[in-house]
Amino acid sequence: MGARLTDSALYAHLWGTDELRRVFDEAGRIQGWLDVLAALAQAQAELGIIPEEAAKAIAGSSSVELLDLEVVAEETRRTGHSTLGLIRGWQAVLPDEAREWVYYGATVQDLTDTWSALAARKVLGVAWRDLRAIEEILLSLAKAHRDTLMAGRTHGQPGSPITFGYKAAGWADEVRRHVDRLREAGPRLFGGQLGGGVGTLAFFGSGGIELRRRFCGLLGLETPAISWTSSRDRPAELVHLLAMVTATLARVGNEVYQLSRPEIGELAETPGRGVVGSITMPHKRNPEIAEHLVTLSRLVRAQQGVVLEGMVAEGERDGRGWKAEWAAVPEACLLAGAALDLAKRMLAGLEVHPEAMRRNLGAMAASEKLLAALAPSKGKHAAQDVLQRALAAGESLDEVAFAAGLNGLDLLAPDAGAAGRMVDEVVRRARAARASESEVWP
Amino acid sequence: MGARLTDSALYAHLWGTDELRRVFDEAGRIQGWLDVLAALAQAQAELGIIPEEAAKAIAGSSSVELLDLEVVAEETRRTGHSTLGLIRGWQAVLPDEAREWVYYGATVQDLTDTWSALAARKVLGVAWRDLRAIEEILLSLAKAHRDTLMAGRTHGQPGSPITFGYKAAGWADEVRRHVDRLREAGPRLFGGQLGGGVGTLAFFGSGGIELRRRFCGLLGLETPAISWTSSRDRPAELVHLLAMVTATLARVGNEVYQLSRPEIGELAETPGRGVVGSITMPHKRNPEIAEHLVTLSRLVRAQQGVVLEGMVAEGERDGRGWKAEWAAVPEACLLAGAALDLAKRMLAGLEVHPEAMRRNLGAMAASEKLLAALAPSKGKHAAQDVLQRALAAGESLDEVAFAAGLNGLDLLAPDAGAAGRMVDEVVRRARAARASESEVWP
Amino acid sequence: MGARLTDSALYAHLWGTDELRRVFDEAGRIQGWLDVLAALAQAQAELGIIPEEAAKAIAGSSSVELLDLEVVAEETRRTGHSTLGLIRGWQAVLPDEAREWVYYGATVQDLTDTWSALAARKVLGVAWRDLRAIEEILLSLAKAHRDTLMAGRTHGQPGSPITFGYKAAGWADEVRRHVDRLREAGPRLFGGQLGGGVGTLAFFGSGGIELRRRFCGLLGLETPAISWTSSRDRPAELVHLLAMVTATLARVGNEVYQLSRPEIGELAETPGRGVVGSITMPHKRNPEIAEHLVTLSRLVRAQQGVVLEGMVAEGERDGRGWKAEWAAVPEACLLAGAALDLAKRMLAGLEVHPEAMRRNLGAMAASEKLLAALAPSKGKHAAQDVLQRALAAGESLDEVAFAAGLNGLDLLAPDAGAAGRMVDEVVRRARAARASESEVWP
Amino acid sequence: MGARLTDSALYAHLWGTDELRRVFDEAGRIQGWLDVLAALAQAQAELGIIPEEAAKAIAGSSSVELLDLEVVAEETRRTGHSTLGLIRGWQAVLPDEAREWVYYGATVQDLTDTWSALAARKVLGVAWRDLRAIEEILLSLAKAHRDTLMAGRTHGQPGSPITFGYKAAGWADEVRRHVDRLREAGPRLFGGQLGGGVGTLAFFGSGGIELRRRFCGLLGLETPAISWTSSRDRPAELVHLLAMVTATLARVGNEVYQLSRPEIGELAETPGRGVVGSITMPHKRNPEIAEHLVTLSRLVRAQQGVVLEGMVAEGERDGRGWKAEWAAVPEACLLAGAALDLAKRMLAGLEVHPEAMRRNLGAMAASEKLLAALAPSKGKHAAQDVLQRALAAGESLDEVAFAAGLNGLDLLAPDAGAAGRMVDEVVRRARAARASESEVWP
Repeated sequence: MGARLTDSALYAHLWGTDELRRVFDEAGRIQGWLDVLAALAQAQAELGIIPEEAAKAIAGSSSVELLDLEVVAEETRRTGHSTLGLIRGWQAVLPDEAREWVYYGATVQDLTDTWSALAARKVLGVAWRDLRAIEEILLSLAKAHRDTLMAGRTHGQPGSPITFGYKAAGWADEVRRHVDRLREAGPRLFGGQLGGGVGTLAFFGSGGIELRRRFCGLLGLETPAISWTSSRDRPAELVHLLAMVTATLARVGNEVYQLSRPEIGELAETPGRGVVGSITMPHKRNPEIAEHLVTLSRLVRAQQGVVLEGMVAEGERDGRGWKAEWAAVPEACLLAGAALDLAKRMLAGLEVHPEAMRRNLGAMAASEKLLAALAPSKGKHAAQDVLQRALAAGESLDEVAFAAGLNGLDLLAPDAGAAGRMVDEVVRRARAARASESEVWP
Repeated sequence: MGARLTDSALYAHLWGTDELRRVFDEAGRIQGWLDVLAALAQAQAELGIIPEEAAKAIAGSSSVELLDLEVVAEETRRTGHSTLGLIRGWQAVLPDEAREWVYYGATVQDLTDTWSALAARKVLGVAWRDLRAIEEILLSLAKAHRDTLMAGRTHGQPGSPITFGYKAAGWADEVRRHVDRLREAGPRLFGGQLGGGVGTLAFFGSGGIELRRRFCGLLGLETPAISWTSSRDRPAELVHLLAMVTATLARVGNEVYQLSRPEIGELAETPGRGVVGSITMPHKRNPEIAEHLVTLSRLVRAQQGVVLEGMVAEGERDGRGWKAEWAAVPEACLLAGAALDLAKRMLAGLEVHPEAMRRNLGAMAASEKLLAALAPSKGKHAAQDVLQRALAAGESLDEVAFAAGLNGLDLLAPDAGAAGRMVDEVVRRARAARASESEVWP
Repeated sequence: MGARLTDSALYAHLWGTDELRRVFDEAGRIQGWLDVLAALAQAQAELGIIPEEAAKAIAGSSSVELLDLEVVAEETRRTGHSTLGLIRGWQAVLPDEAREWVYYGATVQDLTDTWSALAARKVLGVAWRDLRAIEEILLSLAKAHRDTLMAGRTHGQPGSPITFGYKAAGWADEVRRHVDRLREAGPRLFGGQLGGGVGTLAFFGSGGIELRRRFCGLLGLETPAISWTSSRDRPAELVHLLAMVTATLARVGNEVYQLSRPEIGELAETPGRGVVGSITMPHKRNPEIAEHLVTLSRLVRAQQGVVLEGMVAEGERDGRGWKAEWAAVPEACLLAGAALDLAKRMLAGLEVHPEAMRRNLGAMAASEKLLAALAPSKGKHAAQDVLQRALAAGESLDEVAFAAGLNGLDLLAPDAGAAGRMVDEVVRRARAARASESEVWP
Repeated sequence: MGARLTDSALYAHLWGTDELRRVFDEAGRIQGWLDVLAALAQAQAELGIIPEEAAKAIAGSSSVELLDLEVVAEETRRTGHSTLGLIRGWQAVLPDEAREWVYYGATVQDLTDTWSALAARKVLGVAWRDLRAIEEILLSLAKAHRDTLMAGRTHGQPGSPITFGYKAAGWADEVRRHVDRLREAGPRLFGGQLGGGVGTLAFFGSGGIELRRRFCGLLGLETPAISWTSSRDRPAELVHLLAMVTATLARVGNEVYQLSRPEIGELAETPGRGVVGSITMPHKRNPEIAEHLVTLSRLVRAQQGVVLEGMVAEGERDGRGWKAEWAAVPEACLLAGAALDLAKRMLAGLEVHPEAMRRNLGAMAASEKLLAALAPSKGKHAAQDVLQRALAAGESLDEVAFAAGLNGLDLLAPDAGAAGRMVDEVVRRARAARASESEVWP
């Protein structure tokens, strides 16, 4: 049983998804490692570095279910070596003729960096899918509420009107940039690693470069120009992508949290069936997911600093940073995965209350527009001064308008300016981008 | 099976100790919660708030082994409530007359904050014990090597001589300050929490304050002046203590790492029996623990930012920060516990190589002393200038000394100044402090 | 002209106070350095290490106004040495007989660490004064509003009633802990540094230890047991104190920000005379200070990570971390100083609107109390279930109470439980503590 | 005079470059703002929103030198408004007919976000230029030392051989990825902002969208689909780019620092003329720049957390995060600029000592190769075990080889495997990329 609450039977669902837990849990990780080592053996057999039968036997037994994990763990602890326990545990189930040819000439980071690239590909695939699903919901909200007036708020204070569609479109626009970032970064992040002791492929003699090419090819990964065991910008970029994505979701969550205050009442999460808000205050209905998105974002952000620090790696391999990645990168992936899943669910069930939005617009919503109306004749800054004084003295916008000889319902009617046109533009751009890209990536 | 590598069968020993894992793993945490709730019931029975038999039944069944954790987990997920699953799971094994009196009037944070204080007490007790054990080793090293000359290094470059005892005493001095910090912070950190919905104890009518006093007293915790559900300086202080302690251990580890370079060769970890350094480069003997101490420190530091951010809590309870503590605080505790344990082991087996230290002193070790000798007559800054030029031009210290009419072996003999006396003072202060304090705390 | 907006003529007042800027700006810092060097010369003269007239001349010219800072800067750049420019610039205004005796045998960190301790003392003195002033305001608010009912809010949602005094007392309680922390940490932080090249005092021969004692004594600083040039827990502790203090102020600021929303309207900053809220939306009155407290807190927190990382220092001096302190520590001090000053002003003018607080209590404020009333007969958990369902179905608390045979205005009257008594206890403890401590510290 | 040491006359050169200081200092920033406002006026005149003469007058007086900054600062403080002081100060020098038409309808973020995009373009232009210059030096080093053997080091311990060219090529490869990242991110980052109060352009009636298009066009910035006042992924991305770039430079600096230890002696900075290493230990020659690159990286990284946190912005404008950007973004830019400049200088003068590299290869450099030679016959893992035991028992590689019937000088000759071919590939890819891109960007 794990010691992390994030992995507990009770709470794991809040800090990861089943889908990503299967990538990162012990069975998933070891299976991933075995797959990498089987690909290595295959590439080596193709080049005559190891016997073909050995590669076949290795492939045939490359299943985590065959391993005695107790033994693997015990040997890991005993040898103090990250993967020798695995090697010995695997050797125990390999036929004699294959035992010495497994993990042949590779070093720990060859295995773990390559597996990490494979895992990153899965994680970014999930992010791609979920971000696009979220974008779809946001675009729908943007269109549906293109003209649903509500207060724009700056510094926490209601200002001029916006529409809820405008708010949703702003979220969608941010999400779209993340989709672009994934697409751009992907090729950099999905690169394999093979180099042996210090990355030079010296173990493999003159065939090393070709071996690496085949090895990466078998796994569908890019072949790097040079070993990158101490070049950790890739993990830093990956975690930063996830940190940014999660921050965006936290922004949306926090907005739902704030606008769900009963005193505002403009948005609300739909609670699931059976959900209990508070065991002491039975009336409460808390924005649980909204809140949790902020929590997750903080935790991912913390890991971002770790991997960025890890870029300052020493020599050809520096365990100080690279082992920190072992904890930080999966943590970031799991938390970001949970955030994507929760955000999707929250947004799919989001309650929008146009009447509350309308009510909260308030009597001052047209102050900018009145300023604009007064500006040409009175001067913009002079008008601002006059207006601020009058309103501070308790005058209404009507009174000021009347005194200035301006009137008509139109002038003081709530007006969201070009909000609708901006919604249209966000939708247009997003639709065009979506049409030209695959649903499944990479 | 947990998805965190830090909790995996293979690697958990690197990211926590069994001792602390038992505090934080699901069984340990839930048992801790049950203990808190049993204390609550007992205090309530003493005040006639719940029936005495109910409290007895609750105490009698307050064992995690009685619970069906599957059911607890299932109900936790279903209700979306942090502890209602536990309540229902517990109710299932309670006699009828006790079922409604369990968790009576308390809220989630009453439970979790109180338990966290209990856990913090255990963690700081471990830190106290291990820091003092580390101090003891460091004091021994300081005394044994009070006069073992080695190069002082600044900016990575050998300068004037120090002794290894001086280095160890500097570490010990820092550790002593952490012991002081634990002692000072303890009373603040070991406080209970009971308040109900918004912390006012309203559920309990006029008896709330007395109930809280008894509840905290039964658990050996301080009674707070006021509820602190949104006052999160305590967790921030706890994690900062751990982050500082771990940073000190990382400093020691990093020094061992650097001075273990074969080109320097002054220190080395003693590898455990059966330990394998490298599977590709069989001659290697890596400073594994030294390196890992740096890794652990980075990860604890990351959590420090999370809890500090969490201090900016909103309203009377703010899940955004407080749920982040759920992940961050145990993580920091487990990692710091691992660091303390590893550091103790590393230092207990530390190899010190006085001959390498002596060899690395180098020909320039006396440049400061020669400067001091020249200063009274030539002027300190003028002498520095002359000396720097001469040495840059390839002259030896001997030659410069001779040219200045200074000589004698004594002048250029390596001299660690007051290093030994500083060692004595550190040891003296530490011995006095240790004599006046308990081995077991708190 | 500085390149940092935080130092600009336009905005510096938002990112520092004049009082602390005078400590840290170039003139203040250099003057501080000269004072340290004058004390060093005096101590050296007392021990016959340098001529008495030299010390007198040094003291007599230890004024930043005498220096040609252009020359100092030019030499600093030319030599690439942190303080050699200062030495040469000072020598230019010293009489011949003193020129070679200035900065005699000391190294850069002797100067800067000692000065930093002096600066820390000033900064913590300011923090002490301002925190206690803030505490005083908060205690007054707590007493004045001991019984001013308002909604407690959890997860952003109104729950059971609290009083505004209870909220203010919770802030005061947190502030008091910071005062305690300052008092405890002070003696650790106010320590001098003198050691020469690698901290061994070798330059000074056998008199080094006594020299250091006098040097520290003259400056009113603690004499350390051992040089701490690579032992950076002190700066880490200092910045963490400031980060925690600023986080508390940010918590208060954020609460004011949120409760100033017109939809809530319970608190408001008093804008200064002449203050303009918005140049585009003339009606707006933004919680500018409240908001800025959060900003400042984030920036101080960022520096906290820097100094904590710096604890992992290498060798006897490690510029990588120590030079980072040069930027990080003053930054944290200036920002925290601004936060203290702003918070004091904001709280002194805080508008409290009891009628809005009362209005926002809402119809559900008594749900916890009704639950408590139903619990003894119906069972607490059963009652919670019934109550939640009824309220979700749209029933009022009245209806539920009536159906359960409970009534009377009293039961459903807003009730803040023991909030008032907790306020009293916070005030009592604070008053006792304040009575036993000095207004001026250290 | 600024209070930040980073801006002091003495030390500013270490924390920024003149080139970037001119962008961010008060005069530069205000000039940038005036340019933005002049472009706004011009666009408004083109659309008939303001009189053409007003726009001309505004353009004609849009010079920071005309402003009385004392007055601007005083009004900024008095009004508590970020830009009203500037408006009033500018109005004072504008002809009557233009005074009311300046800053017409725009809000603070319209100005500052747009200016920030312009500044980002300059900063990334500098980064592009300097990164490519650094790449050029690294490619030269890689080619020149393609076959210069040295020890690969993992966990701080010498392992199999690499070449210095391989190390330099690894750095170049990382730098190239940053160049790619700049190119990709640029278009996202160089976007203008215009929206008025809440971003809807309501002030401008139906012409707002067209106004924004012209405004952005005049400044050479992208026109956004929608206002992004609360969508702060752009600043987060910018600072992350700079943090990654600086981390890479810190990695290089740290490597120089470590390999400059006299005990290793493989690399050294060339000190500038007149540079003084140590005023207490005259022989010292410190890797000052190398060290400082690490310092700068830590400080930039700290700011990265601030802007990432700022992404969780509330409402249509959230000063808590956006004002934090005011401090964090320029700070990151200045520090990164300094790092780029220093790294370029350090690398241009880097001393490489092939003989020391050769000497440090050590007697065990061929252990991996011997393992490879033994593996086919003895089995790889069995051979590793035998070899490790023999070497731990003090046998030499020669002895082991001889005992195994393997010999010949060739086998144990240092061999960097495919290091040279990887160098070639890095150079090839970089040359191709450089040939297809502009020296000046964007």
